[in-house]
Amino acid sequence: MPAPAVMRALTAGAELRTWSLIVTIFGDMARQPGVEIPGPVLTALTRAMGVKPEATRVALHRLRKDGWIASRRAGRVSHYFLTAAGRKKSLAATARIYARHPPAPQSWHVAVSGPLDPPGRLALDGTMAAAGYVTLTAGAWLGPGPTPDDLPEGLFALDGAALHLPDWLRSTLAPPALSAAYRAYEATLATTAERLAIDPGGLSALDRAAIRILLVHGWRRLVLRHPDLPDGCFPADWPGARVRGRFHALLDRLGETTLAELMDAAPA
Amino acid sequence: MPAPAVMRALTAGAELRTWSLIVTIFGDMARQPGVEIPGPVLTALTRAMGVKPEATRVALHRLRKDGWIASRRAGRVSHYFLTAAGRKKSLAATARIYARHPPAPQSWHVAVSGPLDPPGRLALDGTMAAAGYVTLTAGAWLGPGPTPDDLPEGLFALDGAALHLPDWLRSTLAPPALSAAYRAYEATLATTAERLAIDPGGLSALDRAAIRILLVHGWRRLVLRHPDLPDGCFPADWPGARVRGRFHALLDRLGETTLAELMDAAPA
Repeated sequence: MPAPAVMRALTAGAELRTWSLIVTIFGDMARQPGVEIPGPVLTALTRAMGVKPEATRVALHRLRKDGWIASRRAGRVSHYFLTAAGRKKSLAATARIYARHPPAPQSWHVAVSGPLDPPGRLALDGTMAAAGYVTLTAGAWLGPGPTPDDLPEGLFALDGAALHLPDWLRSTLAPPALSAAYRAYEATLATTAERLAIDPGGLSALDRAAIRILLVHGWRRLVLRHPDLPDGCFPADWPGARVRGRFHALLDRLGETTLAELMDAAPA
Repeated sequence: MPAPAVMRALTAGAELRTWSLIVTIFGDMARQPGVEIPGPVLTALTRAMGVKPEATRVALHRLRKDGWIASRRAGRVSHYFLTAAGRKKSLAATARIYARHPPAPQSWHVAVSGPLDPPGRLALDGTMAAAGYVTLTAGAWLGPGPTPDDLPEGLFALDGAALHLPDWLRSTLAPPALSAAYRAYEATLATTAERLAIDPGGLSALDRAAIRILLVHGWRRLVLRHPDLPDGCFPADWPGARVRGRFHALLDRLGETTLAELMDAAPA
């Protein structure tokens, strides 16, 4: 069975934060209302990825404290599920993570802030980055679509459609470290695909789910690091579009594992 | 005859650069191709504004050296006229100076520069200011209409129509010194109008032309100090729109003086 080798390929060099892995698990398997994951399934899944049960327990506690997940007990078993707030954040992220195609906004807007003191500037920079804006220059941002109603107060804004992206801006959208991370992930995808090819039928439901989660987790860590833009906004040598295709091809090959299958594999 | 008093009102507190006054004269009376102003008419006009003939001679020399005007001699008299380059600049400025209504652009564009070294930034700031752009923040500008073909290379640009102007931006468009200058000019207009009312029929053609030139000159020095924008872009207490109306009302009352009338007054 090639699962341990694949797992090594997927986790090598990656700093896996258990709470973040669990966020990926809920985003992948339990983002619909009413879906719960039994504790034993979570422990089995994370153990298959090389995470110790104690680390999973601590991470679940932290996520519950942060209001991301909640739990209910049924007999000896805890069942975990996303809170309304956790689901909202999860849905916002998964819309990007699982998108097979890049966004194709019909319009754009530029927002510009007035003079700010350094703490104010820092806070606004954080808000705009979190909202997915591209920084054009200090205090000026580009966002897809029309100016949103909840744009921070006091910003200048122009709504438009025709965009001219100079090379320097394309380059700032693809800093070397980000392009390198995409290429490293692409290599991981290739290694994983090769190792799976040796014995594609020999995976247990648990291993298949664990591999899928690790693939999604690695992809999630890439795409959420930069604004969501059409491929045409990036430099010509941007690997993102190609890697997206390979990620989805491998995910399709693996298929989805249902929670029912996992519960059979790790009975509560 | 109230002319000297009016002239005092129009020149009080203003630092009149003779070459700049002469630019105003050509823009007002001789911007059409083929129109020439005889030297004696220029001297008589500027003398009526309190400028010594020697200063006029020096200024004409400077403007000829700068390629703004040229001259031809006919007997003892020099005839001055705008060069093609001088006419082009003059027409660009007079379009704004004599506009009875503010511009009403149907669209706008924002331009943003990439990182620049300080001399590069300074040069670009100058280019954009000269082209009539509003500075939104360091390295980001707003211009009326669609992105022009001759936008400096390497700028990001977004073309759009819907504009949201926050209060801080309106305020930067109307700095206190500029609003104060508009109000001071408005007071000059009022004084001039009052003094003219005492004896409106008593003005010579030369005095009428000199007063008109001084009015235009003062107005020109105001409007060319800031970008040409719809009145709605300025703060609510912006005096510009009201002063524009008063400037045109007084100009209409004075009427235009033809060069022929002036040549009769100051025969070559």
